[in-house]
Amino acid sequence: MAAEVGAARRNRQWLLARRPVGMVSESDFELVERPVPEIGPGEVLGRVRWLSFEPAMRGWMDERPSYVAPVELGAPMRAPGLAEVVASNDPAYAPGEVVFGMMSWSEYVTGRWSAETVGRGYRQVPADVPTEQVLGPLGSTGLTAYVGMLDVGRPEPGNTVVVSGAAGATGSVAAQIARIKGCRVVGIAGGAEKCRWLLDEARLDAAIDYKSEDIGSRLRQTCPDGVDVYFENVGGAALEAVLDNLAHGARIALCGLISGYNDAEAQPGPRNLFQLIVQRASIQGLLLWDFVHRIPEAFAELRRWVEAGEIAYRVDVQEGFEHIPRTFLRLFSGANEGKQLLRL
Amino acid sequence: MAAEVGAARRNRQWLLARRPVGMVSESDFELVERPVPEIGPGEVLGRVRWLSFEPAMRGWMDERPSYVAPVELGAPMRAPGLAEVVASNDPAYAPGEVVFGMMSWSEYVTGRWSAETVGRGYRQVPADVPTEQVLGPLGSTGLTAYVGMLDVGRPEPGNTVVVSGAAGATGSVAAQIARIKGCRVVGIAGGAEKCRWLLDEARLDAAIDYKSEDIGSRLRQTCPDGVDVYFENVGGAALEAVLDNLAHGARIALCGLISGYNDAEAQPGPRNLFQLIVQRASIQGLLLWDFVHRIPEAFAELRRWVEAGEIAYRVDVQEGFEHIPRTFLRLFSGANEGKQLLRL
Repeated sequence: MAAEVGAARRNRQWLLARRPVGMVSESDFELVERPVPEIGPGEVLGRVRWLSFEPAMRGWMDERPSYVAPVELGAPMRAPGLAEVVASNDPAYAPGEVVFGMMSWSEYVTGRWSAETVGRGYRQVPADVPTEQVLGPLGSTGLTAYVGMLDVGRPEPGNTVVVSGAAGATGSVAAQIARIKGCRVVGIAGGAEKCRWLLDEARLDAAIDYKSEDIGSRLRQTCPDGVDVYFENVGGAALEAVLDNLAHGARIALCGLISGYNDAEAQPGPRNLFQLIVQRASIQGLLLWDFVHRIPEAFAELRRWVEAGEIAYRVDVQEGFEHIPRTFLRLFSGANEGKQLLRL
Repeated sequence: MAAEVGAARRNRQWLLARRPVGMVSESDFELVERPVPEIGPGEVLGRVRWLSFEPAMRGWMDERPSYVAPVELGAPMRAPGLAEVVASNDPAYAPGEVVFGMMSWSEYVTGRWSAETVGRGYRQVPADVPTEQVLGPLGSTGLTAYVGMLDVGRPEPGNTVVVSGAAGATGSVAAQIARIKGCRVVGIAGGAEKCRWLLDEARLDAAIDYKSEDIGSRLRQTCPDGVDVYFENVGGAALEAVLDNLAHGARIALCGLISGYNDAEAQPGPRNLFQLIVQRASIQGLLLWDFVHRIPEAFAELRRWVEAGEIAYRVDVQEGFEHIPRTFLRLFSGANEGKQLLRL
């Protein structure tokens, strides 16, 4: 069966053509057409239906050491997404099933999905959950927000919680979880429209527009007793400003540092790490992979909150295989309004 | 009785004359002579016998917010030390007793010692412990090393532990505790003589001389499996180099950042905080005051180790009231060999 598909169709792919220096651009990728590969023993052939875009993918394009191997030059760009099983030599995956996992910027993907290691696991998508939720608040960004806020940030009712990138896919879920847990929540985001969404839809207590406001003075206004929990997606000026406004024993859940992902040269860090001593505060780096045991509970609880309207979310759905690179770039200009997805 | 002393003697004091800009100098202090004050209800008069010098005292001279109020301009410089009770209106302290606590650069000090808050408490010195141990490995620097290494760093046998400022009062105790606990320990210090002491006397596994060696390449050599625990006293280049060499799940106990204490302008932080995400590592700021409940056990265990020769230590004893400011400055030129003390 795989051979028939392979003979019948071509597989378009976006390859990583060069390692970006500084800001990633469309010219860092190259469009090619290749035969759909045949599958070997234990392998599955999937047709990619949806792709998900995350800032962390920018780091996968660099050669510096990170938590995953870099995408190789000339290989299709790696990306999470949904694929429909077209052919399978693995009894765990049947044709017609829709599977979430690490795909690539390709029309067809193959792999030994059952052999993939924990954290990069491939799992069937429940048929009764909308795709935009599976890839949005119930996807890896939402799950990361859940464990990052609850297991690392550990907010207590009445705490003051600040979230940067608060209108983004991860930050918006993290901020609303803190609100649900009885905290005062201040979101930092770029632009009046995002800040309006944070107040009106996500129902946070305050929003700081880093594009038009001074983060430090707004933090002093909105967090007079200091910041108990900071969920960090951004870094840069936001981190430095929050460090100057920590409460005693504050916890910083370090999820991302998007402000630096496109820097050709790494930028200096905050000048005021000494505030960690002054306030006996901590910074803890986190990745979802370390919390795989928490995913079933996180998925179920997030699903309840989304269905009850407790967690608002937005997805930004682009269309068409040819628009994949420019859709990715939307993350770094801040053009995306909510979780960035693309439907093939 | 206090009145008699007050009438009979003059009290020399070193006052904070101006807030230093950049490196502290002797001219930031002013020597004055005043009457020994009379004591009121609940107060104690002590004659200062020993003063202890710690890098953190530099921060107390600045006006920026920190974990204690700044020393006021025109007030005697605050400093930990030992005083002998001369007169007392507090039944908890009897004349002749020797008391450890927060004193000042004065010949005589007064205070309501029983009313001082936790962490700044005044306690009698056990008569059977040498003064140089009380102010050295069993003093606040040694106790900080104990809780910082064991409660914050949490090393496990076989771990690779790195300590900066490893020949200093705090670092030397922290490093040897890790060695006692079965870790491989690498110390970072300035100069061949200090590194020799780390290897021969403190019996660490390796020493890195930051004055003549590249910290990063030496860390890669000496810690091929990465750094599990980092006890940080220094900051700057050492912190950045260690961040690039973390093991998965590494813990950084942030005790001090002496490299920046004399900067007129705060220097940028490490460029590579993203490594905290890559390795799911943490930085935790610490002060001894949060571990007051641990002090009796810490003191007893450190005392056993010191008496058994398991913890080597050095004290650098200067003499004479008039040499107080220049003794303090020894900390920042690295001239001190071990815990810096002064006997009055």
